[in-house]
Amino acid sequence: MKSAILNLLRDEGEEVSGEVLSKELGTSRVSVWKHINGLREAGYVIEASSRGYRLTSSPDLLLGWEFPERGKKFQHFTTVDSTMDVARVLADGGAEGGTVVVAESQNRGRGRLSREWFSPRGGIYFTLILRPEIAPAYAPRMNLMASVAVARTLRNLLGLDARLKWPNDVLIEGRKVCGILAEMGAEMDAVKFINIGVGINANLSIARYGEKAASLKDFKGTQVSRKDILNSLLEEMFRQQSLLTTGDLLEEWKSLSATLNREVRIETIGGEIAGRAVDIDSNGALVIKGKDGSLRTAFAGDCFHL
Amino acid sequence: MKSAILNLLRDEGEEVSGEVLSKELGTSRVSVWKHINGLREAGYVIEASSRGYRLTSSPDLLLGWEFPERGKKFQHFTTVDSTMDVARVLADGGAEGGTVVVAESQNRGRGRLSREWFSPRGGIYFTLILRPEIAPAYAPRMNLMASVAVARTLRNLLGLDARLKWPNDVLIEGRKVCGILAEMGAEMDAVKFINIGVGINANLSIARYGEKAASLKDFKGTQVSRKDILNSLLEEMFRQQSLLTTGDLLEEWKSLSATLNREVRIETIGGEIAGRAVDIDSNGALVIKGKDGSLRTAFAGDCFHL
Repeated sequence: MKSAILNLLRDEGEEVSGEVLSKELGTSRVSVWKHINGLREAGYVIEASSRGYRLTSSPDLLLGWEFPERGKKFQHFTTVDSTMDVARVLADGGAEGGTVVVAESQNRGRGRLSREWFSPRGGIYFTLILRPEIAPAYAPRMNLMASVAVARTLRNLLGLDARLKWPNDVLIEGRKVCGILAEMGAEMDAVKFINIGVGINANLSIARYGEKAASLKDFKGTQVSRKDILNSLLEEMFRQQSLLTTGDLLEEWKSLSATLNREVRIETIGGEIAGRAVDIDSNGALVIKGKDGSLRTAFAGDCFHL
Repeated sequence: MKSAILNLLRDEGEEVSGEVLSKELGTSRVSVWKHINGLREAGYVIEASSRGYRLTSSPDLLLGWEFPERGKKFQHFTTVDSTMDVARVLADGGAEGGTVVVAESQNRGRGRLSREWFSPRGGIYFTLILRPEIAPAYAPRMNLMASVAVARTLRNLLGLDARLKWPNDVLIEGRKVCGILAEMGAEMDAVKFINIGVGINANLSIARYGEKAASLKDFKGTQVSRKDILNSLLEEMFRQQSLLTTGDLLEEWKSLSATLNREVRIETIGGEIAGRAVDIDSNGALVIKGKDGSLRTAFAGDCFHL
């Protein structure tokens, strides 16, 4: 209902009378008034005059009413320790695939391998719960899928030259603007859930990171719309998911890659691999050609562009 | 302390005076007496006479005192819904690798793909929490590791001709005596935990299963010692774990296999594969040669020996 009210107020751009609202929405004028007040409490500025209601500003929050297509699967928090932790509890409890956990800020945002992910207000932090019917062997492709979706969104929506650093960072002009973390629960036979966490430096002022990271607003010269980015990105992720088991995903990842054809050093659980990144295989593992011409494969690890 | 008392009473086989017990254990006679009473409450029959204490029978339970080497990592339950569920909660909560959850019976024992695992008293039901430092790609080998460990234990301890059915059953004379279920929590980079659930039909009377399943006692003609089996099996699993990333595990699996060189039908998430099982690859996937000579690989699925 609140989504519908917001839509009507935005479509009109001017005053909309309580009578029109109640007619369009098929509800009483008292009910309309109650929802209007609910929206005001959440930070929407809605003026009332003799001619009706007028929306003059919306809070810069990723509230569920702004994502009506997601319905009850969209869960918004002002602050959480980590959207990954919330999502894991939800996934273990049977939450549907497609459930999204969004937070305006995280107290203990997590990156890969238990590292911290700096998560103040102004960024986009969410975890998407997916329940693909795939064998765990395909799971690493989820990283590729998510990073391709982020890069496409930043390219199409903002016209930014987003490129991919293996395994799962998104760079603009060589600086990191997005990190992706995927966790799964699986039997050996079948994935039960894959939670994909995405952190995007949207409107942050990142002095803290030095030159390695940047925020989208640094490249646009102005604040970006977090709502538009999240909306497009979720659509893109659902679309890309259908490509998971085909070669198209790999081709797209390769075409966007900042890692292929570069000298790299990969730190893996099993040790270090250095050489030229020449390919990724069908499971998303990076193929590296050493100085002696030998090929080695890294399933996962920290990648340094040399 | 109770483990130590049991050891002393068993070593002697006859009466051991309270004085000797308190001296050997470095504790007071009152303390000895209290522990003796605790053991009696758990079902141990310990007679007391003027000459001391004598253990005349032990309950047929897999109590922690019988597995002193495991220390506090051994968690015994009379009945649970599922040792897998308990272990997952413990693993998420940070339980150490090597933690074992054992139950005398399960109300909702689980097999692969949410199937039921019939778990009345008399079987051996446990889940072992492991925290190997491996990439998720290696995880399917855990199934192989566990089934090799079970087969070796049944062979060495009981002299039974245990053989392996891909992916994770143990057969004797073609009938299933053990099922294995592995669940993992992982990032794409690194396994966080792998919980291996094992259900062994030890001393069950299995009319329910018909000819496809059997109990160890059917082949031995007498009840088997669940304690001895569990103790040997845990040792074997820890030993096999160190072979996880080497070829030895695969060679051992192959030598024990009842599936290789047979005509099989595999039902997988992606469809059905039929042909001759000719090999397993380094990740434990089964390689099947079709009638047209083509090779196909099954990561996981239900396997039918034709």
